[in-house]
This record gives sequence, structure tokens and C-alpha cells, in this order.
Amino acid sequence: MDVDLSRLRDYLTDDELDGYLVDDDATDSDQRYLSGFDAPDPYQTLVTPEETHLLVSGLEYGRATKDADADSVSRREEYDYQSLLEEYDPHEASIRCLGRFLEDHGVESIAVPRSFPTGTADGLREQGVSVTVETDDIVGQIRAVKADEEIQHIGETQRANQEAMAVAESLIAEADVEDSVLVADGEPLTSERVKEEIEVTLLRHGCSLDDTIVACGADGADPHNRGSGPLEADELIVIDIFPRDKETKYFGDMTRTFVRGEPTEEMRRRYDVTHEAFEAALETVEAGVTGSDVHDATCDVLEDAGFETRRTDPAAETGFIHSTGHGVGLDIHEGPSVSSVGGELEPGHVITIEPGLYDPAVGGVRIEDLVVVTEDGYENLTAYPIDLEPVSR
Amino acid sequence: MDVDLSRLRDYLTDDELDGYLVDDDATDSDQRYLSGFDAPDPYQTLVTPEETHLLVSGLEYGRATKDADADSVSRREEYDYQSLLEEYDPHEASIRCLGRFLEDHGVESIAVPRSFPTGTADGLREQGVSVTVETDDIVGQIRAVKADEEIQHIGETQRANQEAMAVAESLIAEADVEDSVLVADGEPLTSERVKEEIEVTLLRHGCSLDDTIVACGADGADPHNRGSGPLEADELIVIDIFPRDKETKYFGDMTRTFVRGEPTEEMRRRYDVTHEAFEAALETVEAGVTGSDVHDATCDVLEDAGFETRRTDPAAETGFIHSTGHGVGLDIHEGPSVSSVGGELEPGHVITIEPGLYDPAVGGVRIEDLVVVTEDGYENLTAYPIDLEPVSR
Repeated sequence: MDVDLSRLRDYLTDDELDGYLVDDDATDSDQRYLSGFDAPDPYQTLVTPEETHLLVSGLEYGRATKDADADSVSRREEYDYQSLLEEYDPHEASIRCLGRFLEDHGVESIAVPRSFPTGTADGLREQGVSVTVETDDIVGQIRAVKADEEIQHIGETQRANQEAMAVAESLIAEADVEDSVLVADGEPLTSERVKEEIEVTLLRHGCSLDDTIVACGADGADPHNRGSGPLEADELIVIDIFPRDKETKYFGDMTRTFVRGEPTEEMRRRYDVTHEAFEAALETVEAGVTGSDVHDATCDVLEDAGFETRRTDPAAETGFIHSTGHGVGLDIHEGPSVSSVGGELEPGHVITIEPGLYDPAVGGVRIEDLVVVTEDGYENLTAYPIDLEPVSR
Repeated sequence: MDVDLSRLRDYLTDDELDGYLVDDDATDSDQRYLSGFDAPDPYQTLVTPEETHLLVSGLEYGRATKDADADSVSRREEYDYQSLLEEYDPHEASIRCLGRFLEDHGVESIAVPRSFPTGTADGLREQGVSVTVETDDIVGQIRAVKADEEIQHIGETQRANQEAMAVAESLIAEADVEDSVLVADGEPLTSERVKEEIEVTLLRHGCSLDDTIVACGADGADPHNRGSGPLEADELIVIDIFPRDKETKYFGDMTRTFVRGEPTEEMRRRYDVTHEAFEAALETVEAGVTGSDVHDATCDVLEDAGFETRRTDPAAETGFIHSTGHGVGLDIHEGPSVSSVGGELEPGHVITIEPGLYDPAVGGVRIEDLVVVTEDGYENLTAYPIDLEPVSR
């Protein structure tokens, strides 16, 4: 993929730095994005004002020359790594090798991300390289604006997500109810069972996830609670699924809330108000408005309906107790922020809109879609019904 | 779990350092191990010569006080994080908060792991904290020696692994053969299909994985190749599965090699020699011998049979081209090393023994079990038949 690193290159030129260096493996999304390369072993990516260069192990060299978005790929052996290994321990040898690679590219001063390993930074400084931490997360700002290809990847993951949500919703819709507990195949239908079926469905669609939320009753009132145990009738059930495509590595994100049986009037009111806040937030989204504007639109609706929000009380523990949304891409949480500190939205930003209302006495409600910001509005990457009553799909 | 951090505390005392600090989330296995805590958000763990202290966000505080192995847990709010946020950007506010936490515990000098974020290290240095990188990976050395509870966790993951291997082996054994290609349900049986069934089986047993190897023919001759496309009859198929328990986070690791149909004489010879090297390596394992001794036992058998190894030729591209094994625990690759640089094995080390032979013209063979080092030998955590011919299980 062709990524536009001009913001980063301009920063280097303006600050008179020779390069920006990442030292990690491809589990670091910045490194994956900057290099276009995916390796389980550590490697280094150097972005200069003009070019991008990679330093990889001999084992990864062939694949890197084929796959990486780089002007050059070097293997450690070119810098006499083997003889360095005879003189120094593997860590010190790697850093000296990296020093030679930087020297080879005429780089004497580098910027690094905040997460850059201190072991490497101190080692390079000992070799006379000037190392400055870049604190504005310029790479994060670049990554926040998605290319068409990335939007397509995210949309594909979201479609798999919809299949998984349909399986979960159907399980809840089709369960029997015995003594107010949902029952499937003669067993109580548990949060764990529904999560397992979600995960299997995602696997069948090429996605994986580390975590899912299927939280019933009071569990759903704590946004960090993943949920456990039997699902109950007449209670709110929050289902939040955030899978990652195993191939493209792009995430999707969606939440729905259901009640099997009879919701109380208070549950229904909270659901309707959350839905209204969701629509109000979406109507606000377009390039040029800020994430904070969108968050305000959510809070306005919820506060008007009499609920607490963190906007009015930062210590609120019930009501709307998180932000309206966040960016989604190679990481499940990335820029831009759709919160009280959210800056200007740009076309190509992919964000969640996910208002919610929480109270242990009632349960949790959350409704979440994933959308792309456009010049005059948004394109919704989610096509899944919003309804409190679960149906078989 | 009660972990014995005396090696780390002794190092601090000997080097006159006030503490050892980790700044990460629980995806960092060191942090998870030291704190006994599992949080998706960043937090900090401080180990002093006497105690262990955590600094967490308000959202994680309740869970941390319950779950963490710490003498104290502080939340950022105790150090006026909110007012710091009004004065500084979130990153600078976090570092200043961390500085106050260290001061509160009387800590002026810290050791940090190599991977410690440079942004935090430089920020603390600006506040007058002395920051030294600990280069011997003492935490890794401690983690390498497993407590009984950890061995039990690893054993449980390995049992799930065996179930997954049985599903894969059965698929291969039960496939039809048409035009030398394996066929199941009327479709070519692909590497991808077998991997999917492995993953679903693991999910059903509470495990997940990012990657599996099902590599046929020439694919199997490259240990980094995950395999793809239809599986062929009369070819070597390497299956390497390394799942992680979703709850305990401990890994398992096992490899088997099969031929459906008729292996050539050369395939069978390579399989038998690899099996012999595997047994020779296992016989060498006991506390007091070195990882290098075990690796030598493997290489002796393979070289005696006329195969190249990296011991005699570091640039060898066929023959035995990797190390004999590695430690397994919260990470799939951790200490100790069972290679030419492997140090002394200790009781409680959990290691793989995985000799292999590779040649694109023949394919790959690898046989791998996971064992615990004991005073006078080893305990095998793997109970899965070793046979070139796949059978239905």
C-alpha cells in the first residue's frame, strides 16, 4: 500500500533531523504501517526526509525485499553482524549493527516514538547518535486518515463482525426461557457459550479476536466487564465485538444491546434515548467538525433526558461514562478521539459512534457503528439492524 | 501466584538501585508476571528490594487491589493526575504522575528492561530520576523457572494442543486422494482448511492462536513458511501448533510430520533420523547440563547420518537449520535457549525439543515435544504418538 508520509518527512526537515527510527516487530502497528512489512522477529524501519530503509535479519531478507514498502532493505550481515556477535552479546551486537546501518545512510540524529526501547536509545546515544522522542504522535495522525484500500479492509472485517453478531443474536432469540434463564440445548445459555460461537463464526470468516463482551444485567453496567455466567431473560444484554482480520490486520467494531423477554419501561427508555444520542452524534459527523463537537451532540441528548455524563461530572459512575468514540484501524483504539478533547475530523478518519447508558440497578445499553468521515458527512461501514428485541437471523 | 523475585531484588541491592520499573500493559509478559495483574490499559509496576507496588488508572483500581500480587496499589488520582492533566498533555501528565509515585516510595534510581519506553525514561530523567537499562534479562531468567502452577497451566494448554493435532491428523488420514491431492467433502483439503479446524478445536478448548503451520512439500522445508494451498499425497506435511490458553495465557507447543500415501525412502530415512535425534536430545536433558549440550546431542545424530547442521556450517540452508529448542511460558519463545549458546538447565525450565531436517527437494520433517527439566531428567508434558503415517483419532 502506498502511504503518504509527507507529514512525518516535513517534521524531520523542519526539525533538522536525519531520520525517524522504529525498532520493534510487526505487532507494533506503526512499524507495520511505515514498512508495509509483517515479521514476527524484531526489525528496524528508518524514514528519512526522502526515503524509507529497512534493516532485517537474514531469515526475513527475501520476503522483505518482495513485500516491504521501502526504498532499500539491508540485512544485518551487510554490517558484519556475525563478527559483532563474536565480540559482543547479541543485544549489544544488534545495536552496533544498527549504528552502522544509520551511519551508512548518513543519519546522525533521529526522532523516535515514545515507545522506542530505552535499551536501543541509550545504546545509540553511546555511539554518538542524537535521539529525540517525537511527542506529537505524527505517525498516529497519519495512520488516522485511511486510504481507500484500508477502508475496504475495515469494511470487510465489519462484515464478518455482522455475521458473528447475527449468530449471537439468533442464539439469544432462539433460546428457551426456564426460571428466567435462557436455555439452549438443555443447558443454560451462558455469556461464555455465546462468545465461543461468536469467535468460531469469526474464525470461519478469517478473523480472530482476543476478547468479546457479552454482558448481562449488572455486568453490562461496567463497560470493562466482559460478562460471564448464564444469560437472563428480561435483562439488558450488551454485545460488543471487535475482531481483527488475520490477513489484513484491520479491525472492525460494533455493539448491540438486546433484551430477551420483557424489558422494563426504564430499560426501553434508556435504549430509546441512547439510540437518539447515537443518531444525533452521527448527524454531526463531517469533515471540519471536531470530535469534541460530536461528543457534545451525544451528551446534549443524554443530559436533556436527565442522565449524568462525564462532561458535567468527570467523576460520574452512572449515566454516560465514556467517550463517544475512537478511531479504528490496525489498532482497535487509535486516532482520532471522539471525546471532549477530540480535534478536527478529516475525510478518511474511521471512527466508532458508541453512546451508552450504565447503571448497575438497570444494566447497560450501548449502540455502536463504525463510520468513515467524508467531506459532507459520513459513510456507515455497518449495516446491522438496531433493535432491542432479538430476532433469529 | 507467588513468584520468587529474589534474583531481581538481590540485583537491585547489589547495584544500589532503589527499584525496577516496568511501564506497559499486560500484553508485556514481564509486566503480567511481576504484577500478577492483567489490564489492557498501560500501568506501572515497581519492584523494590523489599516490596512490589502498582500504579494504575482509576478504572482498573478495584480489580488491581483484588487481583494483583502487590504490596500496594495506587491510582493516578492519588498523585493529582487530574490537575496535572489541566497543566500538561496526557503523556507529560502521566510521566509527572509516575515521578510522584516513585518519590512517594523513596525511589530515586531505577533499573528498567531494554524495552522500557524511551519517552518515559527521558521524562523521568528530566525529573532527576536515574534510569539504567538492565541488560542481563534477570526477569527472563526468573520467568524461565516455572512454579508447579505454571507447569500445570502449560500442561493444560498442551492437552488442548493434542486435541487439535488429533483433528488435523484425522482430516489428513480420512481424506480421499484424487490425482495425488487430498480431498475432503468433495473439495481439495487445503492447508488453510486444516488450520481452520485446528483453530476451531482450540477455541472450543479455551485456547487461541495467531498462527499455525500446516506446510506441505517444499513449503515445509522453510521453517518460517506457514503453508498454503492443497495438501498433496506422498509428500511430507509439517504441522506445528502453538496455542495460548485464553485464561491463564500460558502457551503449548508441538510439531508432528505426516505423509498420507507413500513416503519415499529418503522421506522415511529423514523421519527416522529426526526421531533418533529427538530421542538423543531428550536423553541428554537434566538439570545441570547446558542447552548447548542438548543441542550437541541433536547435531551429533544428524551429522553422523550425513546431514548438514548450522553447528558445522552457520550458513547451511538445508539439513538442520535451527536450534534444538526454546523455553515456553507466557511467551511462545522465552528462556532458556536450547542452542549452541544455551546455558545451564535448571529444574522447572520448560523447553521444547524439536529437531528437524529441511530440503526443498524432499520437504521438511520436524518432531517436537514440550518437557519440564527435572533434577535427574525430564517430565514430558506431551502425550501424542510419533508416527509418519496419519491415523484417524
